[in-house]
Amino acid sequence: MSDLPASVSIVELGPREGFQIEPMIVPTPRKLELIDALAETGLATIEVASFVNPKLVPTMADAEQLVASLHRRPGVKYTALWLNDRGLRRALATGRLDINGSVSLSASNEFVVRNVGRTMDQDLAAQGELIGTFQSHGIKVESAAVGAAFGCNFAGDVPVSAVIERCKSLVELAATHGETIKHLQFADTMSWATPASIKRVVGAVRECFPDARISLHLHNTRGLAIANAFAALDMGVAEFDASIAGLGGCPFAGHKGAAGNVCTEDLVFMCEEMGIATGIDLESLIEAALLAERIVGHPLPGSVMKGGSLSALRANLSNRIA
Amino acid sequence: MSDLPASVSIVELGPREGFQIEPMIVPTPRKLELIDALAETGLATIEVASFVNPKLVPTMADAEQLVASLHRRPGVKYTALWLNDRGLRRALATGRLDINGSVSLSASNEFVVRNVGRTMDQDLAAQGELIGTFQSHGIKVESAAVGAAFGCNFAGDVPVSAVIERCKSLVELAATHGETIKHLQFADTMSWATPASIKRVVGAVRECFPDARISLHLHNTRGLAIANAFAALDMGVAEFDASIAGLGGCPFAGHKGAAGNVCTEDLVFMCEEMGIATGIDLESLIEAALLAERIVGHPLPGSVMKGGSLSALRANLSNRIA
Repeated sequence: MSDLPASVSIVELGPREGFQIEPMIVPTPRKLELIDALAETGLATIEVASFVNPKLVPTMADAEQLVASLHRRPGVKYTALWLNDRGLRRALATGRLDINGSVSLSASNEFVVRNVGRTMDQDLAAQGELIGTFQSHGIKVESAAVGAAFGCNFAGDVPVSAVIERCKSLVELAATHGETIKHLQFADTMSWATPASIKRVVGAVRECFPDARISLHLHNTRGLAIANAFAALDMGVAEFDASIAGLGGCPFAGHKGAAGNVCTEDLVFMCEEMGIATGIDLESLIEAALLAERIVGHPLPGSVMKGGSLSALRANLSNRIA
Repeated sequence: MSDLPASVSIVELGPREGFQIEPMIVPTPRKLELIDALAETGLATIEVASFVNPKLVPTMADAEQLVASLHRRPGVKYTALWLNDRGLRRALATGRLDINGSVSLSASNEFVVRNVGRTMDQDLAAQGELIGTFQSHGIKVESAAVGAAFGCNFAGDVPVSAVIERCKSLVELAATHGETIKHLQFADTMSWATPASIKRVVGAVRECFPDARISLHLHNTRGLAIANAFAALDMGVAEFDASIAGLGGCPFAGHKGAAGNVCTEDLVFMCEEMGIATGIDLESLIEAALLAERIVGHPLPGSVMKGGSLSALRANLSNRIA
């Protein structure tokens, strides 16, 4: 009936994706403060910066400086985002990041044209260039990601067949470079997914790529991220991106459009309460969420950070009885 | 694999449960404005007031006046809440409400003592008194509700067996009065439920009461209400309480504790996108959510009211192509 996994891995995106969308430029020391707090929660991977054009994303202009200042905690992986070979080379040049060899395509042609200014063929060629760069640095390429996998604001609904085609293109591209994709990620970039479409896509991917690990990147613009995460867990998916306090987007400042990824502490709460191990200390995570809120200076959408965990309540009850 | 229902019924609680918890006293005409807007969305049932002690809940002191002023729209049921026979008699005395004959118990003894100041035995006796009052007004008693069915802040985790026991007590009580319970409601009063516990409770109830309709009342204090709703839908549950804009509780004003019920428009969005008919116009519902936000004067937690529906996006895409 249910294939809930025994444990899950969560990649924390808050410091990168969250701060990226804030109207303020978050000072580097405050970013480091949040990253340090997150690293102490038990999170295994934290995405700390994006190596993109600082003219387009001014709050990420400090990417190099931030990475140089990281207090790397043993056992924690510190990663970053890039959108092209130039960005990847900047990330590699820091020498202080855990670079995951990965390629990606969008399930929607329209989105690629608008978001990265390339056609799908150009985008595939760009992925080949990335593989070359990874290889020249001795990094295996085992991950492939498909963006806009559940729908696109510019193209509408995305058929499952388009998602599978992109996976095949990336797997073949990697193979021509002697690489083997072992990990497939699907992003609900524009919050079109529902629990039903999550199950459809995951099912179809499993059918075609039975040995691949699957991970999901779930935005919460329409409030379904946690339900989508449950639908995926229910099919045994055990890897998720997430954002502390739901950081990313600013729905409460009246912005229309993007909200952040599924809220990390709400996802951890759901998993732990269902007996799925996360390796993360929820109380420390809630503290980190409250810190994120102090840093951005406005309310963030996470729920457990406001409502509190149940383990805290249970502990109080035990104390009362004892 | 999935038992998603073909359609669902949603009971809107915003005007009652939502306004009840706001620090301001919402003026009667503004409540009526929201109720009218909700009645035009296709919602079949709206809970408009609670007949409780006005000293304890001052914003509900206008219950009689509000009900007297309702512009009843044909086809819409207007209901209310009461916690004892005195409240029920006040609701009946209005002569303008659709009174559902119902009884209820809490799965948690501790909660009953604290919330209504009665022991479980006294509470069962009080339910018998309610049945007498319903019967003296010619109203059948077909609904039974169990509160704190997934956990309790004062008692901790609630075993499924306690939930089943309360159902049996209520079914037997009804039977001794010649009534037959056909509808069982389970409330996650204090937001302890997870998708896994929803499935456990629904499964156990189905086992014991295979013919009963099941409905759920899901609070969102810990962010899982929409995931819990999906887990229930996945088991074929087709009746939910919900609250427009997620009204109820005030998580963004720094209150710890209760958030509202699952957000109506987010639930409708999820259902309609999965092919489950709600009979509700989502765009009108979003307008009603924005009205609720204007009435309370602070941001409300609903997501689709900020992110917009996908049908609106799809319509724009069609226009662009056409």
